Amino acid sequence: MNIKGFSFSAIESGIRYANRLDLGLIVSDTPCVTAGVFTTNQVKAAPVVLDKERLKAGRAQAILVNSGCANACTGEKGMEAARLTSAMLAAKLNIPEAMIQLASTGVIGEQLNLAAFEKGIPGLAESLNADNFELVAKAIMTTDTVRKIASTTVTIGKKEIKIMGMAKGAGMIMPNMATMLAFVVTDARINYPELHKSLVKGVERTFNRITVDGDTSTNDMVLVMANGAAENPWIDGDSEADRQTFQNALELVLKDLALQIVADGEGATKTITIRVCGAKEEDQAEQIARTVATSSLVKTAFFGEDANWGRILAAMGRSGVKFSPDHVDIAFGDVLIVKNGLAVGKDAEAAASKVLKEKEITVTIDLYDGKACAEVLTCDFSLDYVKINADYRS
Amino acid sequence: MNIKGFSFSAIESGIRYANRLDLGLIVSDTPCVTAGVFTTNQVKAAPVVLDKERLKAGRAQAILVNSGCANACTGEKGMEAARLTSAMLAAKLNIPEAMIQLASTGVIGEQLNLAAFEKGIPGLAESLNADNFELVAKAIMTTDTVRKIASTTVTIGKKEIKIMGMAKGAGMIMPNMATMLAFVVTDARINYPELHKSLVKGVERTFNRITVDGDTSTNDMVLVMANGAAENPWIDGDSEADRQTFQNALELVLKDLALQIVADGEGATKTITIRVCGAKEEDQAEQIARTVATSSLVKTAFFGEDANWGRILAAMGRSGVKFSPDHVDIAFGDVLIVKNGLAVGKDAEAAASKVLKEKEITVTIDLYDGKACAEVLTCDFSLDYVKINADYRS
Repeated sequence: MNIKGFSFSAIESGIRYANRLDLGLIVSDTPCVTAGVFTTNQVKAAPVVLDKERLKAGRAQAILVNSGCANACTGEKGMEAARLTSAMLAAKLNIPEAMIQLASTGVIGEQLNLAAFEKGIPGLAESLNADNFELVAKAIMTTDTVRKIASTTVTIGKKEIKIMGMAKGAGMIMPNMATMLAFVVTDARINYPELHKSLVKGVERTFNRITVDGDTSTNDMVLVMANGAAENPWIDGDSEADRQTFQNALELVLKDLALQIVADGEGATKTITIRVCGAKEEDQAEQIARTVATSSLVKTAFFGEDANWGRILAAMGRSGVKFSPDHVDIAFGDVLIVKNGLAVGKDAEAAASKVLKEKEITVTIDLYDGKACAEVLTCDFSLDYVKINADYRS
Repeated sequence: MNIKGFSFSAIESGIRYANRLDLGLIVSDTPCVTAGVFTTNQVKAAPVVLDKERLKAGRAQAILVNSGCANACTGEKGMEAARLTSAMLAAKLNIPEAMIQLASTGVIGEQLNLAAFEKGIPGLAESLNADNFELVAKAIMTTDTVRKIASTTVTIGKKEIKIMGMAKGAGMIMPNMATMLAFVVTDARINYPELHKSLVKGVERTFNRITVDGDTSTNDMVLVMANGAAENPWIDGDSEADRQTFQNALELVLKDLALQIVADGEGATKTITIRVCGAKEEDQAEQIARTVATSSLVKTAFFGEDANWGRILAAMGRSGVKFSPDHVDIAFGDVLIVKNGLAVGKDAEAAASKVLKEKEITVTIDLYDGKACAEVLTCDFSLDYVKINADYRS
């Protein structure tokens, strides 16, 4: 799995744990048009603050990422540490500091282990290799149980363009404008406004529509680097059709990664799509879907494989969106279990119970109040979620 | 435990389970001034709809309550069932139907077992007794592990007034204008506007400031019946001091009951008070406190007795209230663990870990941005919460 002009590496630097990949590097041979979206949490990690400032120029050539420490709530000392790590890497790669994007994930409130970076960066730079993409995807894992990668190709102006992405995330997931870490590289030739627009629109319907536990992280970011090596006709705003083609391909990769995050949600045993239709406006459909998707009572019922639709209606009722409870239909998979706000009957409930034994479940809610639809993806709430999060730092 | 002019009874009617108290009755010898606050969930149970309509007159003489079935999401058939049960009781007690308030709690989406009411109501009426208050408190329990009662006395115009309350609730608890079921009886002589005002203000700072799981029920209600038997000078708006005295006493009972609900939160092992100070406005302090108090990550960390203050700051950051992260102080009990947004150090963390072993913990957050404060009470998020809610209907 590789892509023209990019190389990758990852090492065990011992930032927090021994014998675990914890430092990763993505480097482009040439400066890339680069766009990013970042957490909207007011409490922002040091790398988020630094990256946003640097990305005003719309250019980057490398991403340095660590797990084991979020470098969040670390004050001026944390900012200084972030700058120092990028200075070390810039010297080693012989590129300007401003061309480096940083990302961190792990425990909040602890200072970065600079010694581990100092010791690790030379080896990291020396082991750069076109085939190490997957290794970086492993280095960014924390409570993740699997590495998450996705890719696609698309043709624009008879040139084949490749898009490859990786992501991490399993808890503290209710992205708002961005998600946990995701890095996408492409050889597309595209200018900054078009890349940024494609990313923002792509994230809106993918990472911003998933939730594991309703908690928005301090470190969320999605970065896309485009090096232009595919030599396609410039995507620069002249052809909206080409941009749309690129955006669709990008969205496919983002959606794939977002799905992998929910499926690997902390302690999750099932993936659940909450689909709300028949709303007046899409944002109302989304708000109802999100309230249902974050309800602890709904999510524990899915873990128990209990077709407890009353909890779904109760969650809808506190969503803040007006609707008529006695017009609502609810289906689990293909099984209609609620018609006009009332139970369909024992047979339907028995059939729905069978649907709930699946690993992937779609709940469709129809409000009969309009034509707008929206989906939010979530996972169930299991005993292991509590175990993982009661133990996380110990 | 009794109060002039009120009698109580409870029986095992078999609404859903055998050998469990599930039908309770509170009756006043004379019509009472009665005020109520009800769930703001758009999906309202049949008894909530009926009670609100009847309480426009500000009078009631009896409360009939059942556990085992919420009579919510049951449509016109559920409304008809509610009316039928009150007609049965009205005939037996020989009082107008409109003087009966109904309350139900239990599974959502199932129709009421009318046969159980028909069989049970005669015995219920015949066993009315001044000393059975606690028995009714037991009959309204669902996942509650203990019955919840509270009482106080206060003197107004040289007359001693008694206030006695009961409540139930352990899950689906984030009351909004009201909570799960709570019934208060008093012998105070007070008119409807003053009683209603005292109740609304009292609930605002008690039941509306607790959360177990962030889910607002379809059946929440708090009812207060005042029969005037204390013969105190009328509390009718002429003396604001007397009303305030009554409200303080009522608030004491409501707060006591609210605390008991949180302490008995589904699976809870600890009670946690999130106190936010130094805010510009009280509602901003409350919004931050509520976001922290409902965060699954914060609540699982308390279960794990982990002084994970990073999760508290992360939750504050997504609360929607503006504040300066680098001015924030956080203390666990008396132990300051975060100063100006940064960790105080290892010694403070060790001391905070000791605080976390307690059963009752106060977290104090200071924003240094104003003088307003607010508290929200919550409990930790344990393995048993998931077990209880994955199994609830089975």
